[in-house]
Amino acid sequence: MGTAESMLKSYPKDIGHTDIALLASCIEACIDCAQTCTACADACLGEDTAADLAACIGTDLNCADLCSATARILSRQTGNNTMLTQAVLNACVTACQQCGDECARHSHHEHCRICAQACRTCEQACRDVLDTVR
Amino acid sequence: MGTAESMLKSYPKDIGHTDIALLASCIEACIDCAQTCTACADACLGEDTAADLAACIGTDLNCADLCSATARILSRQTGNNTMLTQAVLNACVTACQQCGDECARHSHHEHCRICAQACRTCEQACRDVLDTVR
Amino acid sequence: MGTAESMLKSYPKDIGHTDIALLASCIEACIDCAQTCTACADACLGEDTAADLAACIGTDLNCADLCSATARILSRQTGNNTMLTQAVLNACVTACQQCGDECARHSHHEHCRICAQACRTCEQACRDVLDTVR
Amino acid sequence: MGTAESMLKSYPKDIGHTDIALLASCIEACIDCAQTCTACADACLGEDTAADLAACIGTDLNCADLCSATARILSRQTGNNTMLTQAVLNACVTACQQCGDECARHSHHEHCRICAQACRTCEQACRDVLDTVR
Repeated sequence: MGTAESMLKSYPKDIGHTDIALLASCIEACIDCAQTCTACADACLGEDTAADLAACIGTDLNCADLCSATARILSRQTGNNTMLTQAVLNACVTACQQCGDECARHSHHEHCRICAQACRTCEQACRDVLDTVR
Repeated sequence: MGTAESMLKSYPKDIGHTDIALLASCIEACIDCAQTCTACADACLGEDTAADLAACIGTDLNCADLCSATARILSRQTGNNTMLTQAVLNACVTACQQCGDECARHSHHEHCRICAQACRTCEQACRDVLDTVR
Repeated sequence: MGTAESMLKSYPKDIGHTDIALLASCIEACIDCAQTCTACADACLGEDTAADLAACIGTDLNCADLCSATARILSRQTGNNTMLTQAVLNACVTACQQCGDECARHSHHEHCRICAQACRTCEQACRDVLDTVR
Repeated sequence: MGTAESMLKSYPKDIGHTDIALLASCIEACIDCAQTCTACADACLGEDTAADLAACIGTDLNCADLCSATARILSRQTGNNTMLTQAVLNACVTACQQCGDECARHSHHEHCRICAQACRTCEQACRDVLDTVR
């Protein structure tokens, strides 16, 4: 368990009617998904069949980059903006959905099975926060 | 001038009806905007009035993170996906617009003036690519 | 608890005499520290005394960027290289030490207190891995 | 040509005896190398022989992450610290050297040939800055 929630609680100004526990969960899901996707791309590269997993590696890398950016943006309350939060969460949902679907197709590889799960968790966490900012 | 265009041209498979020059321009605009926003946040921090620039620093940091992620995703053709390209470009347009507006308000600071311009250029480059993937 | 350890275990090739539990701990410490530093920079920006915390914000941002890069590099076994692992861990130790010291000076701010702790934990985790790759 | 130099010149405080043109060159080389390595990893993935290029893809990804972090850290003057600058430049030199060597082995692929060159340029730019901060 990371420090996302205690850090949000220590923010010195009022952060409105934000559901802090939900937001913290989403930040943790994003950074966990980013790490898992980075490791999954690498494990796919280590397979003898890496060439067949090229699309999976590509979606892993995209998902890692978007989850990392989303985690950082959600971690910032200063200069926060609802439109940007929505847009980045929408993009993150798309990346997680695409990567989760792709990895699920290769779930006989343990790394893809775990990664598909991390993507589903992150996708849902992003949707949950999106529901509160709409 | 970076190598984005020559790298896209060296991609070994067909990348469809993509306008390579336009895509390369957008990648370069994103990495330039990311660097400028990172430096602008830092220059704002160096001002004696940093506290008054807090929102500007926050939008700079968000814009830098999103532009970096967008540049990386646009640089990848393997496992490429139109829905993700659109979603991340939409988020990048939003970040650049917000940061361009915020920096334009402080354009008496040379760093904010240059940064507003980099954001406008990047916003337009993202819109131009969006027009071709719709 | 993230998935770093199970992902390392699912890597399809032999990863030598690496202490997987130690390496996984270090990856988790890096991504936790990166998130905490990102949030601490933001919380410092939210303080009325943000201008006095400018150096702290700068070290937070540097530490976040280096911890993120370190987590990604440590997550990759393919094309792994001892010299790079050592060099990036050394840089990460330096960033965490500097940020931990700076935040400790402002530990009356809850966010700086938590962040100093995350930096110390990450610094130690990097040193522990360094001891095994020397 | 990016805005790194004009942004450094707009920094409101004295940044010591830093050679601004040299530092700006290094920042630009880092972001160019990061983009080129990201694209090279992707182009390698697009080759039918992707499995044989696994180590090259891994070093590309590591080099991209370290160059991105280095560009950001060099872009910040607030809370700047010589020890961190040296450590991150050393790590970046190592990453660029390793990736340049690996890509040079595959220079019959145009993307690897261009990438090897970007790595050499970035490695040298980092060494040039290192010479001034020692």
